[in-house]
Order: sequence, then structure tokens, then C-alpha cells
Amino acid sequence: MSTRRHNREQAQAYLDTLKGHPFPSSEKIYLTGSRDDIRVGMRQVQLTPSVIGGSRDHPVTRDNDAIPVYDTAGPYSDPDSELDVRKGLVPLRRRWILERDDTEALPQASSDYTQQRLADAGFDHLRFEHLPKPRRAREGRNVSQMHYARRGIITPEMEYVAIRENLGRERIRNEILTRAHPGQSFGANLPEAITPEFVRSEVAAGRAIIPANINHPEAEPMIIGRNFLVKVNANIGNSSVSSSIEEEVEKLVWSCRWGADTVMDLSTGRHIHETREWIIRNSPVPIGTVPIYQALEKVNGIAEELTWPIFRDTLIEQAEQGVDYFTIHAGVLLRYVPMTAERVTGIVSRGGSIMAKWCLAHHKESFLYTHFEEICAICSRYDVALSLGDGMRPGSIADANDRAQFAELQTLGELTQVAWRHEVQTIIEGPGHVPMHLVKVNMEKQLEACFEAPFYTLGPQITDIAPGYDHFTSGIGAAMIGWYGCAMLCYVTPKEHLGLPDKEDVKQGLIAYKIAAHAADIAKGHPGAQIRDNALSLARFEFRWEDQFNLALDPGTARAYHDASLPQESAKVA
Amino acid sequence: MSTRRHNREQAQAYLDTLKGHPFPSSEKIYLTGSRDDIRVGMRQVQLTPSVIGGSRDHPVTRDNDAIPVYDTAGPYSDPDSELDVRKGLVPLRRRWILERDDTEALPQASSDYTQQRLADAGFDHLRFEHLPKPRRAREGRNVSQMHYARRGIITPEMEYVAIRENLGRERIRNEILTRAHPGQSFGANLPEAITPEFVRSEVAAGRAIIPANINHPEAEPMIIGRNFLVKVNANIGNSSVSSSIEEEVEKLVWSCRWGADTVMDLSTGRHIHETREWIIRNSPVPIGTVPIYQALEKVNGIAEELTWPIFRDTLIEQAEQGVDYFTIHAGVLLRYVPMTAERVTGIVSRGGSIMAKWCLAHHKESFLYTHFEEICAICSRYDVALSLGDGMRPGSIADANDRAQFAELQTLGELTQVAWRHEVQTIIEGPGHVPMHLVKVNMEKQLEACFEAPFYTLGPQITDIAPGYDHFTSGIGAAMIGWYGCAMLCYVTPKEHLGLPDKEDVKQGLIAYKIAAHAADIAKGHPGAQIRDNALSLARFEFRWEDQFNLALDPGTARAYHDASLPQESAKVA
Repeated sequence: MSTRRHNREQAQAYLDTLKGHPFPSSEKIYLTGSRDDIRVGMRQVQLTPSVIGGSRDHPVTRDNDAIPVYDTAGPYSDPDSELDVRKGLVPLRRRWILERDDTEALPQASSDYTQQRLADAGFDHLRFEHLPKPRRAREGRNVSQMHYARRGIITPEMEYVAIRENLGRERIRNEILTRAHPGQSFGANLPEAITPEFVRSEVAAGRAIIPANINHPEAEPMIIGRNFLVKVNANIGNSSVSSSIEEEVEKLVWSCRWGADTVMDLSTGRHIHETREWIIRNSPVPIGTVPIYQALEKVNGIAEELTWPIFRDTLIEQAEQGVDYFTIHAGVLLRYVPMTAERVTGIVSRGGSIMAKWCLAHHKESFLYTHFEEICAICSRYDVALSLGDGMRPGSIADANDRAQFAELQTLGELTQVAWRHEVQTIIEGPGHVPMHLVKVNMEKQLEACFEAPFYTLGPQITDIAPGYDHFTSGIGAAMIGWYGCAMLCYVTPKEHLGLPDKEDVKQGLIAYKIAAHAADIAKGHPGAQIRDNALSLARFEFRWEDQFNLALDPGTARAYHDASLPQESAKVA
Repeated sequence: MSTRRHNREQAQAYLDTLKGHPFPSSEKIYLTGSRDDIRVGMRQVQLTPSVIGGSRDHPVTRDNDAIPVYDTAGPYSDPDSELDVRKGLVPLRRRWILERDDTEALPQASSDYTQQRLADAGFDHLRFEHLPKPRRAREGRNVSQMHYARRGIITPEMEYVAIRENLGRERIRNEILTRAHPGQSFGANLPEAITPEFVRSEVAAGRAIIPANINHPEAEPMIIGRNFLVKVNANIGNSSVSSSIEEEVEKLVWSCRWGADTVMDLSTGRHIHETREWIIRNSPVPIGTVPIYQALEKVNGIAEELTWPIFRDTLIEQAEQGVDYFTIHAGVLLRYVPMTAERVTGIVSRGGSIMAKWCLAHHKESFLYTHFEEICAICSRYDVALSLGDGMRPGSIADANDRAQFAELQTLGELTQVAWRHEVQTIIEGPGHVPMHLVKVNMEKQLEACFEAPFYTLGPQITDIAPGYDHFTSGIGAAMIGWYGCAMLCYVTPKEHLGLPDKEDVKQGLIAYKIAAHAADIAKGHPGAQIRDNALSLARFEFRWEDQFNLALDPGTARAYHDASLPQESAKVA
């Protein structure tokens, strides 16, 4: 059997037998909010008792608090959930959306492309069967979380987020566990307990976003902002050379299991539309895309032939499927392109180079920039957040922090204010490749240029000499920029620069980035972040091996490494 | 076959077939100093030409400079070297030592233990056959590099080091390759070119050491100091439960191949003496040990029964074998022990807990502290450097930067001055587990308390929640503290806290730490550090895949990851 077919069949088998699958010694708990349908799932790691005296035969023990852990896996970590990828997840936000009474179900998709695609029986075998009817804001209405926040409305999404960020940690009473170093937050505001009102005020100010397209009611609300837990994003997506829908859905589930707070579907191959439908319907986390990738496929890869109508239709197509945030490279201005001429690695952002090519060919500003207000207007009707792409990001440490990069950042700041006028939630993308000592100034300039809109960076990689290990070279930069104030870290896998990540690469990238994000939370002094470290360290000191494994980011690997040296059961309780 | 026997046989086969083995597309070159026998080996990566014009059939090309790379592998990366682990390496420093005419060959080993061991035919089958005669400084003489340096003498070792640190990079002319960001050095003094006189002055000032026991003439001189390239150490060593001499020698060779600047032999199992002999005779890098580990074996693991005479004999035993630096936990004072009572993880340093137990049992200061002057006197007669151990280092981020840790650091500063009075080269060990925002103050306090003696840290790990990935959690801290001024980073492998590292773990630990050290060099602004990054980035931009692989820290992995997605040859030249 060919490798491709084999991979596809393996993915199919994985999905066919998919069950809610908790981590070892963990239970899924739900904390309920002010109404019954605000049920916030989290994971709780059960610990064994500590021996505090007595004899070997009659030990005296003390129970240990269960440790709550943020859980991105949604129903996939709940053994009681009924899962069927053909049906998709339960739309937990549907009632909230309907109650607001500011949207309408459309008789059919508004995108021409979607309609053509649906009419083509040739795709029937690929299609997700239970297509929901798309919704859109009623004429003249804005349905973004920022819109509500600015009007003083605390949505169920905001309350959900507040509960989620607190993790129910007020129940931890053991003084050893709650010890924490005062952090160094560089101006982040980290209250002891997150209230729904705090969430609202941060979203209103633009300092945080809750990506929550009304057409993706399956997603569990989460927040991205400097004053909340640092988040991580995983990129998945097929390409023209490999991978199937099954494999991408498998990677999605796998990403959520290993801690992805959001997932970007960067598909560039065939069946992008259908692949995305499967991904969104089965995703408990927000989904981001780079719409220009799909638009480019529609013009057969010829950047110069891109047009605003094609792009606009793509935005609507994706917004009605439920994409939660769009990366838009609207900051690539014509006059910035020559600034990259002296670089070692030119323009490496795919979106950036597409737009640079377009600008040069037409010798004018791109339609992303000239039609930016219309883009915002579309986003506001579905609550699609904007992630302003950094088309000029450095592709090597040599090119870090150069004129092109920072010129674009200024433009992203201007665009942020345009987006905010439309009450569109906005985050800003950042580099890339930056040596350690130049990381901090990136954060400082971004906060200033973009008025504290959340920063969302790829790494940055802090050296270029280790292809094959760029999850690590970039994880170092990610930990640092997370500490300095970056709100979300876009992971890099070991295959970066070399090939497409497989399932194991996705896991390795996520583990590296969960470490970076958590280390950043601790260094900032995020309340409660140190509890898990303390619990694990105490278990280590008391030789509670099982608890060490179960509290680890990757319990199976910790256990396997231990057992490779000392496999006996006795070696785990000694 | 049992796993242990299998591992041992595999190691034996590896050693039996050992040949000088260059990295792909690399050649071993030697730069000669002021005398013919100063021949400094380094690796040079050959690149393919760049296509700068012409047509597909008649391309116009430009040659690319070969890129010099620091090489720790010694003869193991030279296809022309004759290798036989039963004979050991060529003693390249022997003439230099003899010429100084301040040492004498001893008729027999001075250590009682060594003599007993040699007299016991039961160990004959384990013994390294070609035992050299041990040498020692003539009565009243001091043979340390610091001693020579303070007298204004530039030794061949110092000249060797200067050539090695410069890497012959003045031959790189391409402006794109020599571009570099100004660094942020936090007071490090990084001259454009390292002269032998600069090396001498740094060693004289105690700001750098050249570990170079006169009984380890096989080792290639290298330097550890804040004003030089950041170095990494790999720990190997057997334990009572596993591993054989063959496996440890294999790990040594493997460590040098993957970039270990020094190797510590932390053996605690059987045949420590014989294992160490094999390691030293075959090591092109300095070897460090923790002598208290072996002393403890001599008293059957009962810390309270340790005595100064046993320890003293162990120092002499090891010094005459050729150990280049000793970790001595002389800073664990009686009054510091109670300071650890409130910690989450108490005392986690093995040496620290042995000495704490001893101090408490005898209720007095340890013999390491009370006999410290004698320890220095021994070291000065062989040029064994001292690595002052941090017995109070934190074992969890909760315990970082506490009173016990910093109290001991002050004592290490006092001991540094004692060692320097004896002209014994000295470095200072440091933590451990420290959250990111508390890393910098460790470096600052160490520089102040220890008068700029080089710092040598284990990580630090910046979170405790990822056992199985602690090469990474600690690699982040290592990169940061290297940037702040740490001179050598002691690696951590993925098995840290879980089990004993195997060969693959050693490699993974080293790759992580080479990344950290290199990233630190770049952030400090070390001249020339960015050349390799620029060369690799330029190769990437020009789609010279082979050059990207060959310039990578781990060429085989980079190539394999690429080929997993795009195996065709054409995909590497497109």
C-alpha cells in the first residue's frame, strides 16, 4: 500500500473509533456559571495521598488536592461525550447567539463559490453531510463580542471565559501549592480572579479578543490577551502534494488534545472548502485561516490575477462556514516592498509575497488595504476577528527588526484603529526570526504602534542553524516574548522549513509551545500558574512517581522514559 | 539476549569499528600556530555555488565561502586519524608539558586506592592496558595555567585556544555572511579577534579557565569564560543499575561528536576507577568529575563515614588519572542546612545532600570546607580546575533564589579567593530550577559574589511541568543565562528526573544546548557568531537544500525530515 493511502486509512480508523479520552488519572469536570448552559469544562488531575508518618504496613497519609488544568480538548477529553465526526460537535453557543436576536439564518450561502461548490455532485463524496444553515447579522447590526462589550453587555461567552481562566483554583488550599514568586509583568494587569466584567472591559478596550464566529457555535469560548493566560496556536492544513480530509481532521483532534487554544487551517491543496467544513464542524477551538491562500487557488496560483471580488467572495464563503479569525496581510504597502531588497531572505511570509507580487505587478496598493473598511464590515456581521498579518516579517535573524518590518507594523497600527471603529476584534501578527536580545523591542513597539491590541507571534526563532529543531529554536523566543506580553504563540513544528508536519510533529510542536506559554505565565506572575509546578515538584520530592507522570504535560512519555530505566512497579512508589 | 548485554555488545561493536568520521560535506582542517605542534583542528563546511544568472542549461554561478565551525570531536571527526580505543588518543600536549620542565613522572601512582586497585588481578580484564606514568609538579611548583598566566607566560595552550576561538573567520569576505546585529553583552568584553595575550590576561584575572590536567595531555585546549564562546558540558557515567565501560566510552565519543566542550563522568556504579581511565585516555575534551561520588562508594554509601583521608586519596587518584576539573561542594556550611527546611524540594544536589548529611551527623563544618586549602594545593600540582558545586541549588522553581541558595553563593565567592591565592583555576556552579524572570539576577549575583569567576549552570529549567522534555525547559533558561554571561551550560537530557540517558538522549540534550549556547553568542554579539546563521539563511533563500542540511547542527535529521515530505532529488535543487 502507498504511504499516502496508508496514512489516510490510519486517520480514517482513528476517527471511526474516536472516543472521549481523558488523560491518565484525570477527570473532566464542568463548572457552571450564572445559567445552566454555561458549563465550562476543565481537567482535574487526581493525586495519590502523601505518606506523612506511620509504618510501612500502617502508613499515615494525607490526601492531596486534585489539580485543575486548562483543557482545550473539549468533548474529546470527556469519556461521556458522544462523538461522531460525521455529525460534528454539539453547538454549545447556539442558544446564546439566538437569544441575542440580532442574526438571521440565510436561505442559502451568500458566496457564489460556495453555491457552485454545493451544486457540483462531483464533491458529494467529500462533503460534510449535516451542513448547518449559515447565519449573518441582520442588516445594520454588528454581532462582534467587541460590539457587545462596548455597550456594557456581558455575554455568556465572556462569563464562560472568566470561569475558564480562573480554573476553579480557589479550591486549592495547601499553602505549599499556592506559593508563587511575584512575577515581572512588564505592565500586564493580572488580577487575582478574573471576573466577567474584567473580560468585558478588556474586550471593549481591544486588549483582548474572544474569537467566536456566530457560524461556529461548536467552539468553546476562549480569550486572547496580554492580561490572560498565554495561548498557543497550531497550524494544520493539507497541501497540493499530500494529506487528506481525514488526516486533517485527525490532526485537529490531536491538536486540541495536546493543548492548541486555536487552530489555523492553512490548506492550500485540493478540496480546501470541504476540508475546512469538516474541521470547523468538529472543532472545539476557534479556527483561523489565511483567506488569500484559497483565493490564490481560485486564480490557479497566479498572484497578479487576484481581484477584490474574488477575495471578497472568499471572505464571505469562509465567514459563513464559521472561520473565527482571518489573517489579512493588509499592511504590505507598495512602498515597503523595496525595503526588502537588501535582506538576506527577502519576503518569506507567503501572504506577504503574494501581496508584494500583486502590488508590484499593478503598481498600486493592494485590495486588502484599499478595501479594508469593507473587510471590516464583513467581519462585523459574523464576528470574525482580524489577525493582521506580518507580510514583512524577517525570514532570518539577519533581517530581524529592519525597516520593512517596523514600517509595516506602523500600518498595522493604523488598520487596528480602522478595525476598532467597526468594532471588529483584532490581533497583530509578529515575527519570525529574531535573536534573543532583539525580542523585547518587538513587543514594546507592537504595544505602542498597535495600541495594546493583542500580539500573536510565530516563535520567534532565535537562531537559524538548527533546521529539524525549530520547534525548540522558536520555542525559546516564544517563551521570552510570551513573558514580555505576547498574547498568543503560533507554534512551529520540527518540520518547519523542511516539510509538512505529521501527527507526531504536531504533538512535539505543541508540547514545546505549551512549555513556552506556561513558562511565560509563571514569569509574568499569572495568579495560580505555579500551582501545577509546585504540585509536581512536591510529588517528586515525595517520590510519588504516578503523580509526577500524571501532572506532566505528556504523561505517557514521562512514564515511558522512567520505565526504560526502572521498569519495576516498586520503583514508582519507593 | 538481555537488553543490557545487547547494549554492551552494540557499544563494543561501535568502538571496534570506530573511524574518524566527518560530518557531511565537511572537511577537517588544521590551523597552525607559532610552532608546528600547535595545530588547531576545526571543521569546514563546503558549500555549493549559487546560481546568479545564465540559463537552466548554462547557469552562471558564484562560489560560496566554506564555513568554519568549532569542532569538539578531535580525532573522531578526522578521517585521517588512526583510532584505537585500547591505545587511547595521541597526547598532543605532552611536549608542551615536558618543555616547561616543572613536573616529574612518578614511579607509581600516589593514591593508596589506585595501588590496591592495580594490584588486584581481578580487575585485569577491565583495565586500560597502556597506562601512562602519572606526572606531578615538582615539589614547590605550581603548574596551573593560571600560574603561568599571572607570570606573563603565554603557554601553547593559550595560543591554541586563541586560534580555536577565532575559527579562522577572517577568511570570510562575503558581506552578506559577515553582517551581524550589535549584541547586548551585559558587560562582557568581546574583542573582534582573540589574541593569545587576551587569553592569558583573562586566565590571569580568573575570568576564564583552560581545564588542562598535566595527566590528560590528549585533550585539546579549550577555554571557559564569559568573554569567549559559550560552552556546553555533557554528563555521562554509569550507575549501580546499568551500563558498562564500553557504553560509557561510546557515550563519550558520541558526546564529542555532537558538540560537548567538556564531559563529566558521574559514574556511581562498579569499576568507577577503570571506567574513568578508559574515558580520559580517549577523550579529546576536558573531563570533570564529582569526587565525592566515588569517595561515597568507598564507604559503601554511608555519608557519615566519609573522612578527609579517604576524600584526599580520591582527589589524588583522580588527579593522577587526568581529571581536568573537580566539582567540590565546599560551600555547604552547617548553618545553611536548616535554611532548606521550608523548601518544597529540600536539597536536591546529590553532592549537597551527602555533605549536608555529614555536617548534621558530625555537627561540624565539612572536611571540604575545613581542608579547602589542601584541596587547592593538590589541584595546583596537576592543574586540576575547581568547579565549586552548588549543593544548595533549587530543585523546583518554587525554591529558586532563596536564602539557602544565595548564602552558599557568598561562600563560593570566599572559596574562589582562596583558590585564586593558590592559583587554581576556578568556576562556579549554579542552578537548577529558576523561572525566567529570576534568571538574570542569578548571573548578576554570581558575578559580584565570585569576582567574575566563570559561571557554569545546570539549565536552569524554567518550569517543572514537563518531565520528558527537560532538555527543552532547561534549554530555555540556558539560552537566557548564556546571554546574560554564563560561560558554560551543563546540559540536561530528556531523561532528566526520570532515568539514565542513553545515546540518543545524549544527542538530544547536546543539540538543545548547542542551540542555547549559540543563541547566547549571537545575543551577546560574539564576533562572527552570526556567520553560520547567515550562510544557512542565504542557502535557504536560494533553495540550496544540500547546503541547508550540511550547515545544520544535525544534518542527518534535517535531510530526513525534508525527504519524508519531498524525497525526490529534484526537490533539493529546485
